[in-house]
Amino acid sequence: MPLAKAYQLLEPGPVVLLTTAAGGKANVMTMSWHMMVDFEPPLVACVVSTGDHSFAALRKSKECVIAIPSVEIADLVVKIGNCSGRDVDKFAAFGLAAKKAERVAAPLLPQCFANLECRVVETRLVDKYNLFILEVVKAWIDPKRRNAKTIHHRGYGTFVVDGEVIKLKSRMR
Amino acid sequence: MPLAKAYQLLEPGPVVLLTTAAGGKANVMTMSWHMMVDFEPPLVACVVSTGDHSFAALRKSKECVIAIPSVEIADLVVKIGNCSGRDVDKFAAFGLAAKKAERVAAPLLPQCFANLECRVVETRLVDKYNLFILEVVKAWIDPKRRNAKTIHHRGYGTFVVDGEVIKLKSRMR
Repeated sequence: MPLAKAYQLLEPGPVVLLTTAAGGKANVMTMSWHMMVDFEPPLVACVVSTGDHSFAALRKSKECVIAIPSVEIADLVVKIGNCSGRDVDKFAAFGLAAKKAERVAAPLLPQCFANLECRVVETRLVDKYNLFILEVVKAWIDPKRRNAKTIHHRGYGTFVVDGEVIKLKSRMR
Repeated sequence: MPLAKAYQLLEPGPVVLLTTAAGGKANVMTMSWHMMVDFEPPLVACVVSTGDHSFAALRKSKECVIAIPSVEIADLVVKIGNCSGRDVDKFAAFGLAAKKAERVAAPLLPQCFANLECRVVETRLVDKYNLFILEVVKAWIDPKRRNAKTIHHRGYGTFVVDGEVIKLKSRMR
């Protein structure tokens, strides 16, 4: 999909999966703390905690994939969030499919309806806030699942699923 | 509401309103680019563009209120986003109620079901990315509207309304 449209996937605030690869080993985590920072090139801020096993891989490789799951795989998304790559090979444990990305070493997740290949472009706030800024360098969407319903985390396992879509006369992009 | 629960309002990614006050003049803008950065004290990152009239007030006063509207006032939210405080007194133009906050000069919006009083705590990424980090210093929620449905922006006036709420066995906070 065009990079200029990537923001339309992240701006609504879905729970996403973040894959990394370092030392030839891939990992995946569940993440809700992300936001758009710019439209084009699309810049995305996210918080990956030092407590997350993905932190070291993200900092070292400076690459990741943000994959957007739909509600159909919400159970899988929670299972991925409930364990750490320190203890488990999550791809093997959950039969998670992985596909080679085009621009980064981190894998795409074909079970997700959209995948964004990202490079870390800003690390000044990593030490104090675990806040990375990423540039989306390649965006993929499954055309058959463009209207997938995403999930939004409200804390402690409560999630809101996308409901009705409304169209208002906005002048905003 | 307890500050430790403020993240549950912002993490799902709703469209919010941001009020500021500078030189005795209040303003309000519509914003979708925000994310949680820490639980407690609650830290929130947001992007307020130099093109937004609120940018100068936020930078100067270092205070704001993030107010969370429900779908019932979606039309009002879009109207607020369609114009600039440079040209319009939005409070007068839209008959927008304002209430004195407790810890900041920016006003609360009682038409919204929740209001978060915030102080700017980090500005290192303002010059390059228009990215502010705020600390929530006081949180208000209308107990009668705890289950309000929020809206999520998908670009160009398309919004997704909160749908079904599901509960999964997550170990995440």
